[in-house]
Amino acid sequence: MDLFNALQWRYATKRMNGNIVPQEKVDYVLDAARLAPSSSGLQPFEIIVISDKELLEKVKPAAMNQPQITEASHLLVFAAWDNYTTERINEVFTRMNAERGLPDAATDDYRNMLIGIYTQRPASENFNHAARQAYISLGVALIAAADQQVDATPMEGFNNDALDELLGLNAKGLKSAVIMTLGYRDTANDWLVNLKKVRTPKEQFITELK
Amino acid sequence: MDLFNALQWRYATKRMNGNIVPQEKVDYVLDAARLAPSSSGLQPFEIIVISDKELLEKVKPAAMNQPQITEASHLLVFAAWDNYTTERINEVFTRMNAERGLPDAATDDYRNMLIGIYTQRPASENFNHAARQAYISLGVALIAAADQQVDATPMEGFNNDALDELLGLNAKGLKSAVIMTLGYRDTANDWLVNLKKVRTPKEQFITELK
Repeated sequence: MDLFNALQWRYATKRMNGNIVPQEKVDYVLDAARLAPSSSGLQPFEIIVISDKELLEKVKPAAMNQPQITEASHLLVFAAWDNYTTERINEVFTRMNAERGLPDAATDDYRNMLIGIYTQRPASENFNHAARQAYISLGVALIAAADQQVDATPMEGFNNDALDELLGLNAKGLKSAVIMTLGYRDTANDWLVNLKKVRTPKEQFITELK
Repeated sequence: MDLFNALQWRYATKRMNGNIVPQEKVDYVLDAARLAPSSSGLQPFEIIVISDKELLEKVKPAAMNQPQITEASHLLVFAAWDNYTTERINEVFTRMNAERGLPDAATDDYRNMLIGIYTQRPASENFNHAARQAYISLGVALIAAADQQVDATPMEGFNNDALDELLGLNAKGLKSAVIMTLGYRDTANDWLVNLKKVRTPKEQFITELK
C-alpha cells in the first residue's frame, strides 16, 4: 500500500452499492484494528461486526436512517468498556504476562497503579478514555479498508443508547462509541464522491517549535 | 508500505537514542495526520511539533520525567479545540465551500444544524469530542511513522494543564489531548523492545453477527 494514495482515495462514503466485501478483506480490516495500540495495552473495547441484513435494517433508524447502513456490506460497531474494573485490568495483565513468559507478578507495580487510578474515576470518565482508544483503532481500520480498496464510512451520527439496547451491549459492559460501514461506493448516487477533499492548511494546522 | 509489517514493527518506544528524524519524514507523518478524517471534516485540533531541546527539557517534568521526551527527535502535541464555536465552524465551512467552488450558502442546513448542536453542549463535552478526532489522527500518524521506520511513543501520561501552560495553548483556545514522540529506538536500553506484542484474542475482541 501507499499510505498517501489510501488516504487520498478514501472518503466518508455516503451511498454504497450493496456489493459484498469478501470475508478475507473484512478480516484484514479487523486484524489491523486489533493490532492498533491502546493506552497501557488494555484494548478497552470490542468490535461487533454486523452483516445480517435484517439486523442492519433495525440499526438504520437508530442511525438517522442513513442509507449506507443498509447499502453497506458490513457494519463495525466499536463498543468501549463502560468502565475500567480491577477484574478487566487483571485479565489483560495476566494474559500479557503469560504470553510473554513472565511471572504474573512481574507487572504488579504498574498494574496496581493503573487499578488505583482507574477504579477511583467516575465510570463516565473511564468510558470516555476507553472510547478514545477505540478511535485510534478506527483510524487504523480506515486505512486498512482503503488499503484493500474497500470503502468505509466512519459515523458518530447515531443514537448510542438505542444501538446499545438493540445489540444488548449493556449486559456485556459495553457502550457504542463509533460505528463504521464497509462496502463499495455508489458513484452514481453519492453526492460526496466527486467533491474535493479539503483539509486545514498546513500552516494553520501545524506549529513547529524548533 | 505493508500495513501489517508496519503495525507489527511499531511499539510504544520507551527509550530513544537521540538520533534526529529527517525533516522529510517528520513532514510525511504530519501530512498523514492532517489527511486523517474527522467528524464533519472539522479537524478540531492542531499539532504542535517540538524539536527545540531546551523546550523538550521543560516538557519532561510535565510528562512524569519519561526519558523518551528528551531522547526523542520531535514531540508532537495533539491539541484539541477547547470548545466548538460558531466562528470555528463557519471558518471550516467557508473554506471548504470555497475550495470546492461552491457558494458559501451551499452547506447552510448542515452547518446550522452543527452549530445548533455544538454551541448548546458544555465545553467539556465538546473538548472530549474534539479530542476523539485527534485520536483518529494519532492512529494515522503512528502508521505513517512506522511506514517510515521512525519510532513513536503515543503518550497520555502527562500533566495536561502544565503542558498547556508551558505551550500557551489556552490563549489559542486549545488543550492538549495526547502527545507522541518521534525518534529511534534505543535497543540496548529499552525494556519493551524485545517483549512480545500481545493483543486481545480475536474471538474475544470480535463478535460477528451474520
